[in-house]
Amino acid sequence: MRKYAIIGVGHVGATVAYTLVCKGIADELILIDTNAAKARAEQLDLQDAQARLDSRTIIKINDYAELADTDILFITSGNIHALDHASGNRWAEFEYTKEIVQTIAPKVKAAGFNGVAIDTMNPCDAITHYFQRATGLSRAQVFGTGTFLDTARMQKVVAEVFDCDPKNVSGYVYGEHGESQFTAWSTVQVNGVPIQDLVASHHLDLDALEAEARHGGWAVHSGKGYTSFAIATCAVKLSEAVFANARLACPVSAYSEQFGTYVGQPAIIGKHGVESVTTLALTTDEQAKFKNSAQTIIEKFHAFDDVLAAAPVTTVQKPA
Amino acid sequence: MRKYAIIGVGHVGATVAYTLVCKGIADELILIDTNAAKARAEQLDLQDAQARLDSRTIIKINDYAELADTDILFITSGNIHALDHASGNRWAEFEYTKEIVQTIAPKVKAAGFNGVAIDTMNPCDAITHYFQRATGLSRAQVFGTGTFLDTARMQKVVAEVFDCDPKNVSGYVYGEHGESQFTAWSTVQVNGVPIQDLVASHHLDLDALEAEARHGGWAVHSGKGYTSFAIATCAVKLSEAVFANARLACPVSAYSEQFGTYVGQPAIIGKHGVESVTTLALTTDEQAKFKNSAQTIIEKFHAFDDVLAAAPVTTVQKPA
Amino acid sequence: MRKYAIIGVGHVGATVAYTLVCKGIADELILIDTNAAKARAEQLDLQDAQARLDSRTIIKINDYAELADTDILFITSGNIHALDHASGNRWAEFEYTKEIVQTIAPKVKAAGFNGVAIDTMNPCDAITHYFQRATGLSRAQVFGTGTFLDTARMQKVVAEVFDCDPKNVSGYVYGEHGESQFTAWSTVQVNGVPIQDLVASHHLDLDALEAEARHGGWAVHSGKGYTSFAIATCAVKLSEAVFANARLACPVSAYSEQFGTYVGQPAIIGKHGVESVTTLALTTDEQAKFKNSAQTIIEKFHAFDDVLAAAPVTTVQKPA
Amino acid sequence: MRKYAIIGVGHVGATVAYTLVCKGIADELILIDTNAAKARAEQLDLQDAQARLDSRTIIKINDYAELADTDILFITSGNIHALDHASGNRWAEFEYTKEIVQTIAPKVKAAGFNGVAIDTMNPCDAITHYFQRATGLSRAQVFGTGTFLDTARMQKVVAEVFDCDPKNVSGYVYGEHGESQFTAWSTVQVNGVPIQDLVASHHLDLDALEAEARHGGWAVHSGKGYTSFAIATCAVKLSEAVFANARLACPVSAYSEQFGTYVGQPAIIGKHGVESVTTLALTTDEQAKFKNSAQTIIEKFHAFDDVLAAAPVTTVQKPA
Repeated sequence: MRKYAIIGVGHVGATVAYTLVCKGIADELILIDTNAAKARAEQLDLQDAQARLDSRTIIKINDYAELADTDILFITSGNIHALDHASGNRWAEFEYTKEIVQTIAPKVKAAGFNGVAIDTMNPCDAITHYFQRATGLSRAQVFGTGTFLDTARMQKVVAEVFDCDPKNVSGYVYGEHGESQFTAWSTVQVNGVPIQDLVASHHLDLDALEAEARHGGWAVHSGKGYTSFAIATCAVKLSEAVFANARLACPVSAYSEQFGTYVGQPAIIGKHGVESVTTLALTTDEQAKFKNSAQTIIEKFHAFDDVLAAAPVTTVQKPA
Repeated sequence: MRKYAIIGVGHVGATVAYTLVCKGIADELILIDTNAAKARAEQLDLQDAQARLDSRTIIKINDYAELADTDILFITSGNIHALDHASGNRWAEFEYTKEIVQTIAPKVKAAGFNGVAIDTMNPCDAITHYFQRATGLSRAQVFGTGTFLDTARMQKVVAEVFDCDPKNVSGYVYGEHGESQFTAWSTVQVNGVPIQDLVASHHLDLDALEAEARHGGWAVHSGKGYTSFAIATCAVKLSEAVFANARLACPVSAYSEQFGTYVGQPAIIGKHGVESVTTLALTTDEQAKFKNSAQTIIEKFHAFDDVLAAAPVTTVQKPA
Repeated sequence: MRKYAIIGVGHVGATVAYTLVCKGIADELILIDTNAAKARAEQLDLQDAQARLDSRTIIKINDYAELADTDILFITSGNIHALDHASGNRWAEFEYTKEIVQTIAPKVKAAGFNGVAIDTMNPCDAITHYFQRATGLSRAQVFGTGTFLDTARMQKVVAEVFDCDPKNVSGYVYGEHGESQFTAWSTVQVNGVPIQDLVASHHLDLDALEAEARHGGWAVHSGKGYTSFAIATCAVKLSEAVFANARLACPVSAYSEQFGTYVGQPAIIGKHGVESVTTLALTTDEQAKFKNSAQTIIEKFHAFDDVLAAAPVTTVQKPA
Repeated sequence: MRKYAIIGVGHVGATVAYTLVCKGIADELILIDTNAAKARAEQLDLQDAQARLDSRTIIKINDYAELADTDILFITSGNIHALDHASGNRWAEFEYTKEIVQTIAPKVKAAGFNGVAIDTMNPCDAITHYFQRATGLSRAQVFGTGTFLDTARMQKVVAEVFDCDPKNVSGYVYGEHGESQFTAWSTVQVNGVPIQDLVASHHLDLDALEAEARHGGWAVHSGKGYTSFAIATCAVKLSEAVFANARLACPVSAYSEQFGTYVGQPAIIGKHGVESVTTLALTTDEQAKFKNSAQTIIEKFHAFDDVLAAAPVTTVQKPA
């Protein structure tokens, strides 16, 4: 059985829930939200769809005890209205999400959750790191969607230039799911050709493409007030790789031993969560950007210092 | 190729779009909204998901000319904020949607659309009727989701009593997608047993169940401010029956020769849209309720009298 | 995680495997066959497809130990070449399948399998009964596809007459998955109308329709030498109802307390397998046919008397 | 509407049909086979599954006239029993398939087919070329699965070495869908790392891996007597890219201007079929192998010289 839980059924959480239900991916789904009426409404709306779907998902709400045998937990809380729209800065959401994750983490821990947790809360990297530390779950078990979405956006903007399927574009966006991220162009290929070999012939402005990918979220946000479909699709895909032990290569927010922080980088996703991170031969310039982006995350993570000092947690390694 | 268009990408329209994209149902999808930034944002959000989906959908926006060879058109506009939440009355939305559909219909007609149009706008039955009249499309080609959703809700509430899959519950909700609707209990079976044979043994309060189904939308609405998942699922399922010429039995808002109006009733959905309506042996009481509900719709439809008198349209029958 | 196993990868087993893999239903799949080269070939063929599928399934072969934590086990062995094509009699296969199931059952038991077992081997009802007895699994945990397929065929032949979707036809084929089966016409509805009300107006020959449904398998068999797609689709659908605890109403080969045998009848399929059987108000004539069909199965089941007497097994009830 | 046809419903054709039906990809499907009983049996078996599937596909048989408005045509005929199992040589099938394709092509042409044709018949490259020439369809409209399957096998064998998802392996097998094919290792990456950088650290024997991929089909064939699942999955995936105009990068048997023959190479698949071929910077050694493989195909294609001389056809370019 595939048992999922989602904490926070705002736009992202609700869209993740809908995806799991309408594609028949989840057998059981727990929705948790401090706004009980919202959780109940999403449960009802999803249940109302059941007679029209070939698959079936049992949907329950607001019971942390259900986490004890949950396989995959998404944490997707947030307060989108707190976003400083003008600034274009995901950190603006931090004040709110910091408080939320501090409330959630102990409850997840107390419930005995021992599955894989996937975080979409922003700032993704710092929140993911805090959540891992506060729950005591292993670093494999906890990861963030990180640059998995930014990479999808990079694939899209590059594909538009070449008029091809985004899946023809390989390569990775590294670093923070935020302003300091960067596209490692040395890793990018289009239809099997290194993009750097195509710059001249196609008059490419890589900086402009990178900026378009980086700000893709804001383009969506400015028109609909939030983002939901792409991030939900990314989150669900990662969870499927866990269930199937696919060992799929995906750029996610994973713990970096090198930098001592969670940060967006290519990783192998399997049944334990992050099975390993993949080290690619970045250029010197890319390495500098990567280090810089990691440093930016670390600085923000210090916002949790007081909290973590007050309540230290021993990490429990999940048995293989 | 399966070519879809959606006019109105609010919560319902956007969720329909996401469903078509994330399940790989649509090959091409046109999103149209007077709020160009919203349409653009939904397009971007859906395109950002493409690198993570196995399927691929070409997504375009705000070009009515694309309707000329569109197969399925959803009209899903609305102004949810205009809803009188307290009243629990879908007619409250009418003032807004009436104006919207009057704007949309001539554009759809001018674009040469000749596919099947599925309406989810409320009040569903009157809007569907007006849209059919104003576009000159055949009565087969235009229908509304009507009580397809209410029936799904009835299946759910009955299934909860019997602790079974909603798909085990057959039967129909008839009439207006609104307050005057009713569950035709004489048509309802649970696990193959007529529900009326189970009333005593299971201490069923059919009136309470009917009320719960009828007000299911408001329960969702009060918690999340709108409904989206179930209605989108219903709309998409109907469109799939059209593409496959499935001749699937579904309760929809279809034209009734008997009452001279669109009204929720069982119909056969195939490549022409509504292939036929199905006449079941309702009880005398149910027949009275059906007539009454149709009458309610007709009264509201009169709101369009001026408009239709001013711009009469000859219905064009689509060739078989 | 959804873990499946299939014992017997002939046409049916291999098609079940392909369905589970190509639709992304199974996370892990164990293929077992006495013909090791065949199992290996199916594993390779399915693995070769993985790079082209969005989902991922881990596929292993010929290891009974994997059954210890398998959720769903299909037993699909058979020797199709042993079928007496001319006789049109599924019992002809019995001599072979009897021997096979006697070999399989103890191995399944020894492996500590404690999930739900779904049998497609023929004669389905007797083999299912024997397998349940020989493994000591509960009667809930073991059931056969039985008349689930025959019912699908009945739905199809009736739908053809009415030019509609087979899903518009409800009702059940009861009894043996074999010659003594019968369509309980009192349970059949078309588009919500009892079929018996349509006999005169549509000049229906119910006996002819019943015969066409009953012999549907032979029609397929005579043209391709075996049946595979429909039976695999039925088997997979049942397994999905188990994983989701759907409590879906399906006619399957379930144990009848009344007759003391497994026999095709409507049941509720959920996480324990057969959650309950549904008793419908059959006509006197239908009841007689049901009893007769059950009797036919019992007679065949006596073929296992010696074996069961020699190795009695205590049934272990699976904890809820 | 997505309308498909399949000529030849042997193991491959029937599995393609099942995939299209069970995944709800095809709205309408035409099965054509000289063995009318076989076509009928497959039709029945697929129709018997319809009551258990959420989707619906209209299935017709043996009517070439249906090809006039068919979007995608698979040609999948063959006589697997004619294969010289010992030789491990796909050309052994040629004598039979040559005759078959000569019969099919004029009928397809006469029917006015003007969609995209995808060939899986072996020897794939020569048969595809002949079929294109004999039907007068454009070179874009006709292509073969070619090394799309061999590439999937290469991805699998490499993935096994690195214990990862086959989708983590990029790169291409070029040339003949047969013995002279080769893996262009310069194009292969594992988790984003060029495989050639991993040879030493992982003690890779690339020749052995290439041979395993090349002979993957025989490994399957020796165990089950034919291959079906992976080839069907490949064929269906290509057709989906056509319907969605995905412009997906896939190695297929496409016409090479350089060599004057169809041959396996990376191409962009969209609504016209092969939108373009992709030229990668192969090594000198790989270029030589590519030329050699193309030459091998050309030699075999000469077997059609008499036939083509006798019945020259003008190629009709499909309008954009």
